[in-house]
Amino acid sequence: MSHSLSTIDQRLTAMLHWTAALHHDGSSLYVSNFHPALGQTVRVRLRGPVNAPIRSVWLRTAPDGEEHIAEMKPDGQQGISRYWAGDILVSMPRMTYRFKLLTDEGAYWVTGLGVSRADSPDSFDFKLIAGFRAPLWATKQVFYQIFPDRFHNGDPSNDVPEGLAWGHKGHLTQRRAWGAPPLPWAEAGSQDYYGGDLPGITQKLDYLTDLGVTALFLNPIFTAYSNHRYDIADYHHVDPHLGGDAALADLRRALDARGMKLILDVTPNHCGWKNEWFTAAQHDPKAPSADYFTFRQRPDQYESWLGHPTLPKLNYQSERLRDAMYRKPESVMQKWLAEPYRADGWRLDVANMTARQGTVQLAHDVWKEMRRALKARYPASYVFGENFFDGTPHLQGDELDAVMNYQGFTIPLWGWLQNTADESSVWARWVDPFPLPAEALAEQWARFRAMIPWAITQQQFNLLGCHDTPRIRWLLKGDRQRVKLATTLLMTFPGVPSIYYGDEIGLDGGADPDNRRCMPWDDSQWDKDLRAHHQHLIALRKTAPALLEGGFQMLYAQGSTLAYLRESTDQRLLVIGQRGPDALINVRIPVWHGGYADGSVLNDLLGAGQFRVVDGALVIEQLPAGAALVLAG
Amino acid sequence: MSHSLSTIDQRLTAMLHWTAALHHDGSSLYVSNFHPALGQTVRVRLRGPVNAPIRSVWLRTAPDGEEHIAEMKPDGQQGISRYWAGDILVSMPRMTYRFKLLTDEGAYWVTGLGVSRADSPDSFDFKLIAGFRAPLWATKQVFYQIFPDRFHNGDPSNDVPEGLAWGHKGHLTQRRAWGAPPLPWAEAGSQDYYGGDLPGITQKLDYLTDLGVTALFLNPIFTAYSNHRYDIADYHHVDPHLGGDAALADLRRALDARGMKLILDVTPNHCGWKNEWFTAAQHDPKAPSADYFTFRQRPDQYESWLGHPTLPKLNYQSERLRDAMYRKPESVMQKWLAEPYRADGWRLDVANMTARQGTVQLAHDVWKEMRRALKARYPASYVFGENFFDGTPHLQGDELDAVMNYQGFTIPLWGWLQNTADESSVWARWVDPFPLPAEALAEQWARFRAMIPWAITQQQFNLLGCHDTPRIRWLLKGDRQRVKLATTLLMTFPGVPSIYYGDEIGLDGGADPDNRRCMPWDDSQWDKDLRAHHQHLIALRKTAPALLEGGFQMLYAQGSTLAYLRESTDQRLLVIGQRGPDALINVRIPVWHGGYADGSVLNDLLGAGQFRVVDGALVIEQLPAGAALVLAG
Repeated sequence: MSHSLSTIDQRLTAMLHWTAALHHDGSSLYVSNFHPALGQTVRVRLRGPVNAPIRSVWLRTAPDGEEHIAEMKPDGQQGISRYWAGDILVSMPRMTYRFKLLTDEGAYWVTGLGVSRADSPDSFDFKLIAGFRAPLWATKQVFYQIFPDRFHNGDPSNDVPEGLAWGHKGHLTQRRAWGAPPLPWAEAGSQDYYGGDLPGITQKLDYLTDLGVTALFLNPIFTAYSNHRYDIADYHHVDPHLGGDAALADLRRALDARGMKLILDVTPNHCGWKNEWFTAAQHDPKAPSADYFTFRQRPDQYESWLGHPTLPKLNYQSERLRDAMYRKPESVMQKWLAEPYRADGWRLDVANMTARQGTVQLAHDVWKEMRRALKARYPASYVFGENFFDGTPHLQGDELDAVMNYQGFTIPLWGWLQNTADESSVWARWVDPFPLPAEALAEQWARFRAMIPWAITQQQFNLLGCHDTPRIRWLLKGDRQRVKLATTLLMTFPGVPSIYYGDEIGLDGGADPDNRRCMPWDDSQWDKDLRAHHQHLIALRKTAPALLEGGFQMLYAQGSTLAYLRESTDQRLLVIGQRGPDALINVRIPVWHGGYADGSVLNDLLGAGQFRVVDGALVIEQLPAGAALVLAG
Repeated sequence: MSHSLSTIDQRLTAMLHWTAALHHDGSSLYVSNFHPALGQTVRVRLRGPVNAPIRSVWLRTAPDGEEHIAEMKPDGQQGISRYWAGDILVSMPRMTYRFKLLTDEGAYWVTGLGVSRADSPDSFDFKLIAGFRAPLWATKQVFYQIFPDRFHNGDPSNDVPEGLAWGHKGHLTQRRAWGAPPLPWAEAGSQDYYGGDLPGITQKLDYLTDLGVTALFLNPIFTAYSNHRYDIADYHHVDPHLGGDAALADLRRALDARGMKLILDVTPNHCGWKNEWFTAAQHDPKAPSADYFTFRQRPDQYESWLGHPTLPKLNYQSERLRDAMYRKPESVMQKWLAEPYRADGWRLDVANMTARQGTVQLAHDVWKEMRRALKARYPASYVFGENFFDGTPHLQGDELDAVMNYQGFTIPLWGWLQNTADESSVWARWVDPFPLPAEALAEQWARFRAMIPWAITQQQFNLLGCHDTPRIRWLLKGDRQRVKLATTLLMTFPGVPSIYYGDEIGLDGGADPDNRRCMPWDDSQWDKDLRAHHQHLIALRKTAPALLEGGFQMLYAQGSTLAYLRESTDQRLLVIGQRGPDALINVRIPVWHGGYADGSVLNDLLGAGQFRVVDGALVIEQLPAGAALVLAG
């Protein structure tokens, strides 16, 4: 079963240094319990190659800031891999750890950011959090995101009437025919309505069950005066034009009958200009909500989201605001988790900016407090934030459960899938028209993953697009193979996958509001092959242990090709993607450092056949542009 | 003055990609003011090569967590370098920023951790802190660290008497002859005394002035019952065996007369077992200091430093302890900064563990509070911590001014200077006997530097060794060339250099207590050439703008050789080191990416002659083992 040293030596020059086979991630193959309680001892393991010049292996932690280093013990051999194990006493709420190997070549450190002769700050370390109240159910879901006005009109009687003067710049409400193109903001001011509502969603649950998704993420449903409803006027009621509170309770019951979950969307950063909190504060400095806002001069000079006067910014220096938003049982965030709505958690809009106002930076305080308040009553709630940038400082176990994983998944994936330089896709002058090589994709994924504990990685909310971004089909210029490749990666990546409504049937659409087209219910408009691909991958995602709980090791990332390993105690899956533009022939993808012995035969679960490992590499005769393989064995 | 593109193209294959010439650090050549106030606008610059396929350059910040990206404008050309400039409105106490270049090869990001196609978490960014109360004087100093019992006995009448039962395990005090070897702990229990004292230091100031040092860092001087005095018995008095309070006031006056500075050493993590705070708390649960400690059972079961019962751990959940240690004007940390002692700051012993006790992690709170308290009255105080590991989380502008820069300077330097594999120098089984290649040295320096603002980098307390480590001479097995090389790097590195007493005359000594030998005052025992080297480098350090305030760019780091650039608006110095073991001949060190044009002639300030830049590289015919060059021009 073991490789001869000479074989590995050959690889050193041919492909990869033996240290490429050193692997740890926080998953259950490597950590006995990544949800430990304070005071527990956790066993962690490191994998390495059987034939390597390793003298000893050490586990390095820093309890109370002081280095603690202990030798790891051999923990068995499996094929061409061997393991070492060591124990961590979880003495602090957050433990960091790394590994040190003494070898004939000197010492190597293994951290979340890779293997190096150089030592590094603790922020590079693997991370373990104690007493974490994880929404364990979330990691088993496949989410489906719905923009309520555009999914299905279940009750035309509640539609927004034509001609109401709701818009900030005098725009009147407009009723639009289902399927007509959404109107640009300058033309309609977000006052074009299609009549989609909660009864419409309830009526279409058969469709979703057939697709295979298990959880809904709904864009805002609270009373507001725009089609996107991010200008929340009343956090305490479901918009009557979506069916009102009763329609949400109905939807909840219908979801329960199918064992489905529900996430709602709330904006804690700002409210709408017609919100009573705000209108009262504008005119009465003694109003209970007077200090929820930051007025430079009443009534019309106030802080707002990126300067939009319709979206006054909430000021978390206000204790009453904290009470109203999340601290009290009747607060916004607690109320909708209670009967009869029982939302399973929140997506927090503009989480990146919430409770941050220049000199007053309260985000860490507010998220910590919010978490304590919600998790005390609803320990299984799943609370994740919108963050297009760096959410990792808020993902250390005591603030958010997750963020929408733009930087750690989506954005570099978009860059990589854009397979040729394309000036036409550039929407701002600083956007890169060149495709990202797989090396950089892998590097960016690794950097963002390294900053957070595995318990969070498992819960990160992954997506290919949403109501804020162009649709994946549009970004990839309708290339169905690459859309399928993107979907395969979404469904096989660590974290929680979410599909934006309509992506599964090939709905197209560029930037907002074009990305919010109506869901077509005439199935002649559907890309049925793409939908079948989604069904296949969703089914796989929900049943494959390696995808649900397996670790993650990037095995190969060069130019147009990537390969990663998902491995659990029961299963090992190798995912390979090739973006193109050209087909590759006589491909050899090194996999020995993932523990694949020569002679291993891998079988594609997507039907592309069998492949064999020869001289440490998987041999693939032809890898078409846009190819995606999910190989078992 | 400009390079032809073909010349640069040649370099791409021969040496380094053009992106190697992209450089920013937080120094005054690149940042208009790295000590801005909140609300100020700061101009930052990026340097790049004149001939490169750059289309546009962007400055990326994240005010209130939202990406802000603005195009940088060309800001002049200098030789083969060009600059771009952009403005940052310092809207938050801590701003992070990075650069983005659109090029014919795609986009590159430039962060504190280097150039990459991949984007990265904000923690990789350059950092700017606002309203920072910097001890600006500190960066101009050359420190000299003294272990008081071993420097000079200025008043034999205050010597510790023989035969007192001070030791924890029954060890009696012993008077030792000056120069006799320090006794191992097992033999003497730190009860061997040589009589060094504060009057002795005062008497030897001429020696220090002649050496050129400008500031003292004294190991503990408060009343205690061991020769190292880390078991502080009375934080409020100077040990009478060192001369008492009056001797410190005398020393202060003598230092003032020479314009010299003074840093004292205090242990906020624990006190000594004979401290009245502790003895009172042991026997009286109602004592004012009762909650300063963590008793499992009174009187003898309590938390202590790494389990040593003579060093009971202080518990910062106690508000009274915070008052007594740093909050009140009469507190320990404030008292000694006041007249007549006027210490210029503190070295905080065991800062890495202070206020950290398992589930209760208060370090960030305590350091923030300590900083506010001290800087309110003593804004110019310089307060740095001992931290052998990762101090960077406490170096973000609102906690410590600096740490002893073990990870960001000393430890990787030791690893690199150890020029051949050496099992004999290994003091623990996990210590690497192999030398560190310069690549890893550079990487580790870069990682730790990247985590902190430049304002802190400038103040980091750099050292080659101290009372806690083997002496540099011992580590380098007496190799004088390499000791001189180490000294050259210490004196030319960003931060504040500190010399451990006796290192300048070649005093030897391994691990504690051998590293605490008596300073020999018979100059026939001195390595006078080494001392002259120190004098030369200290003088250079104090007068060269590039060393006092210049930026830092690693130009080359391979195996046994390194080269870095220190550059200010007025001066540019290129530092080159070669550890050996062999001399190198026909060396070509690439320097074009530091802005050195072909034909530049550089002159060694240490006397090794002139060198010329040819085809982008500095040509050096021979570079002996242990060579150090400091090149101007």
